[in-house]
Amino acid sequence: MASSALIDDLVAANRILDQQGIVDGFGHVSVRHHADLARFLLARSMAPGLVTADDIMEFDLDGNPLDPRGRAAYVERFIHSEIYKARPEVMAVVHSHSPSIIPFGATPVPLRPIYHMSSFLGAGVPVFEIRDAGGPATDMLIRNPELGAALARRLGSAAVALMRGHGDVVVGGSIQEVVFRAIYTEINAKLQAEALRLGEGRVNYLNAEEAANATETNRRVFARPWDLWKRQAADRR
Amino acid sequence: MASSALIDDLVAANRILDQQGIVDGFGHVSVRHHADLARFLLARSMAPGLVTADDIMEFDLDGNPLDPRGRAAYVERFIHSEIYKARPEVMAVVHSHSPSIIPFGATPVPLRPIYHMSSFLGAGVPVFEIRDAGGPATDMLIRNPELGAALARRLGSAAVALMRGHGDVVVGGSIQEVVFRAIYTEINAKLQAEALRLGEGRVNYLNAEEAANATETNRRVFARPWDLWKRQAADRR
Amino acid sequence: MASSALIDDLVAANRILDQQGIVDGFGHVSVRHHADLARFLLARSMAPGLVTADDIMEFDLDGNPLDPRGRAAYVERFIHSEIYKARPEVMAVVHSHSPSIIPFGATPVPLRPIYHMSSFLGAGVPVFEIRDAGGPATDMLIRNPELGAALARRLGSAAVALMRGHGDVVVGGSIQEVVFRAIYTEINAKLQAEALRLGEGRVNYLNAEEAANATETNRRVFARPWDLWKRQAADRR
Amino acid sequence: MASSALIDDLVAANRILDQQGIVDGFGHVSVRHHADLARFLLARSMAPGLVTADDIMEFDLDGNPLDPRGRAAYVERFIHSEIYKARPEVMAVVHSHSPSIIPFGATPVPLRPIYHMSSFLGAGVPVFEIRDAGGPATDMLIRNPELGAALARRLGSAAVALMRGHGDVVVGGSIQEVVFRAIYTEINAKLQAEALRLGEGRVNYLNAEEAANATETNRRVFARPWDLWKRQAADRR
Repeated sequence: MASSALIDDLVAANRILDQQGIVDGFGHVSVRHHADLARFLLARSMAPGLVTADDIMEFDLDGNPLDPRGRAAYVERFIHSEIYKARPEVMAVVHSHSPSIIPFGATPVPLRPIYHMSSFLGAGVPVFEIRDAGGPATDMLIRNPELGAALARRLGSAAVALMRGHGDVVVGGSIQEVVFRAIYTEINAKLQAEALRLGEGRVNYLNAEEAANATETNRRVFARPWDLWKRQAADRR
Repeated sequence: MASSALIDDLVAANRILDQQGIVDGFGHVSVRHHADLARFLLARSMAPGLVTADDIMEFDLDGNPLDPRGRAAYVERFIHSEIYKARPEVMAVVHSHSPSIIPFGATPVPLRPIYHMSSFLGAGVPVFEIRDAGGPATDMLIRNPELGAALARRLGSAAVALMRGHGDVVVGGSIQEVVFRAIYTEINAKLQAEALRLGEGRVNYLNAEEAANATETNRRVFARPWDLWKRQAADRR
Repeated sequence: MASSALIDDLVAANRILDQQGIVDGFGHVSVRHHADLARFLLARSMAPGLVTADDIMEFDLDGNPLDPRGRAAYVERFIHSEIYKARPEVMAVVHSHSPSIIPFGATPVPLRPIYHMSSFLGAGVPVFEIRDAGGPATDMLIRNPELGAALARRLGSAAVALMRGHGDVVVGGSIQEVVFRAIYTEINAKLQAEALRLGEGRVNYLNAEEAANATETNRRVFARPWDLWKRQAADRR
Repeated sequence: MASSALIDDLVAANRILDQQGIVDGFGHVSVRHHADLARFLLARSMAPGLVTADDIMEFDLDGNPLDPRGRAAYVERFIHSEIYKARPEVMAVVHSHSPSIIPFGATPVPLRPIYHMSSFLGAGVPVFEIRDAGGPATDMLIRNPELGAALARRLGSAAVALMRGHGDVVVGGSIQEVVFRAIYTEINAKLQAEALRLGEGRVNYLNAEEAANATETNRRVFARPWDLWKRQAADRR
């Protein structure tokens, strides 16, 4: 059994991502099991903003539910299972249709870090083209382990990968980190698009060292926005 | 009499479309009568965000109210009646001034599906020019059956038609589907406009097969956002 | 004494304009006295969103308060007094720094009606340049009857005038009409700017007859959004 | 001890800046001590939206906490201490990642006053490039007195300085003034970017005299929006 503290954090993450506009009726967030690294926790197939502790299911790294009890699993759970398989250090994964990143997935413009809060983008943001792995006639979903593995390969060692015509996937070393990254990826996309228009393409991004150093610094302050986001999500209910 | 479940869903649709910013004081949503396909249900002339079960009226396919009881009907009810006449498989219709679609109706730029949630746009989005059917001096409203029929012809077999200088009309196979489509049409318009600016016109849309397949897939998940939207609309009151 | 119904409507107008984002801490709305056309009602100098019935003062058409009782008057009350003097048919006036119209006041791009809700813009929207009447070193405020008269002359017979580097003034035949116009002026500005970018300047506006006809039609439906806006403003408190 | 009235205002400023979207989990606001000009008050290291009176700490002008009682200080408190040292007339300071100003910090486009509410920008808005003072490999933070002093020098006598890839710093003669300026700096950035696109670069800004005069006038009305913002921040809780 997963600890109730971990489940509570995962429920909070669902609510926060909903309240912050990263997910809507769709999207999901998972966490690797603290006591069994070959398992992960993910809500049953439902809108993240409505998730409670009873909705959290356990899966193995092939995406099989271990305790379904009649609960339906997300079709796209293989996004999570294949990334946990490929990236041992990843402890949490968000998949969303975060609005401001959709245009970056559909155009040749790379997502780059415009300020220190989104410095984790400095290592590069690959774009996953499902046509490469699934051909020209998919329904756009990562609906089997093969597509999940292809997405994990495209992600490589990055923190974020965009999915053309679909959304993105964000990974982190904890629930707090992945939520932080999902939110600041959205904000960066919005502000970078604005800066590109304002400066007619001349934008001064963080350089590689600034990005790496700021990412290290930010690791020490995840609790600060987390407390605020939790309160905001709780207030809305 | 329409079933109270259908009326409850129609009231919920009014509230959801208001809460999601698809309608404001204006706009309306209807559903075909479940037991008599030659009738449809639509609120009396009022702001959708204030509609209750007592405000729901029944109309025939010529737009005549069957149970007015002193309640005023929307001037533009012919949008609904003529589409139900022309499209037997359509079970629900939304007309709105959804903000992000207004610019697409007033410019030559076609609305196209930028991600899988709005894949139903893949079959094409015609623009209705009221001057073609009503001449150069209308008040822009679909205020008689003839204009309604002209709009239905322009819609053809599409899911959405834009109305120049006015708004749009969205159709679906159920209340849940038409609400889903109205909301994701708005989001698509916003994100497509952003992508066109970001990519300076180079945007990679869903292809025809992706759009058709994703539309089929989405039909199985309408309940997921519907539950969330209902809760959000209820919370706001 | 003004009737309590008129005062209640003026208080509601203050709250609605605040809740809809037309005014912030600044801006004001007035109504001509129903029983004495040479008087008008306007809140004391304060944020519109906090106005109650006790804050409503009476002024003559020179902008003199008739019942100050220690209450401070807005410095810019001459916007109202001079327009009521120049336009006998005007019964209500809004002055605001409505965000989306600021760019139109500061650039040579004319505000034009992109859809039927803002058809009242079809008669043209003049821009008031305070340097013409007040010279190059004002503090931008309409702080005396002379500047108010110059603004009223620039407004002419229009429904709306933009004020460069400042905001706008909107007039109507009732409180309901002026609130309707203030809100749809803001929305039109936002959507027109978006359409100009999307269409790279090619935007199909309402023509003069469509604008005139839609304006006439809209006069019959002011109550519909008013009821909604009142409820939304009341819910927020 | 600082007076409870000053502490209450500082707590209100934290909540207002959060509610108005100027700060998120990050950012801070300080006030100079009313009875000892060589001290200032600033919350402990936490999200501004959660600050209460118990979280307010006192610092000297070298950024040393005088009453830590186990409370952690913001790493970037030297933004405040060095500005108070360099600018005796400054009584309050805001540092934020205010979203609309980020693009101006990352491009060569200068921030200029588009309307009278942001007239305090008329004296010019310098951009602080941390690479000039800290080299090419900082973590972007003002984490020591030397970087704080460099930022204060770049600010010079201005009301606002942008920080490339980071945010801005805003100063004022009181808590009310600095909050007013932080909010209208954000709004100006948003509206100026919009005007530059709309007018394709042709924007008519306030001239120097208009800006100076409007700034003087605005000093007399800080209480008006403050009362509103306080109520809005209180309502949200």
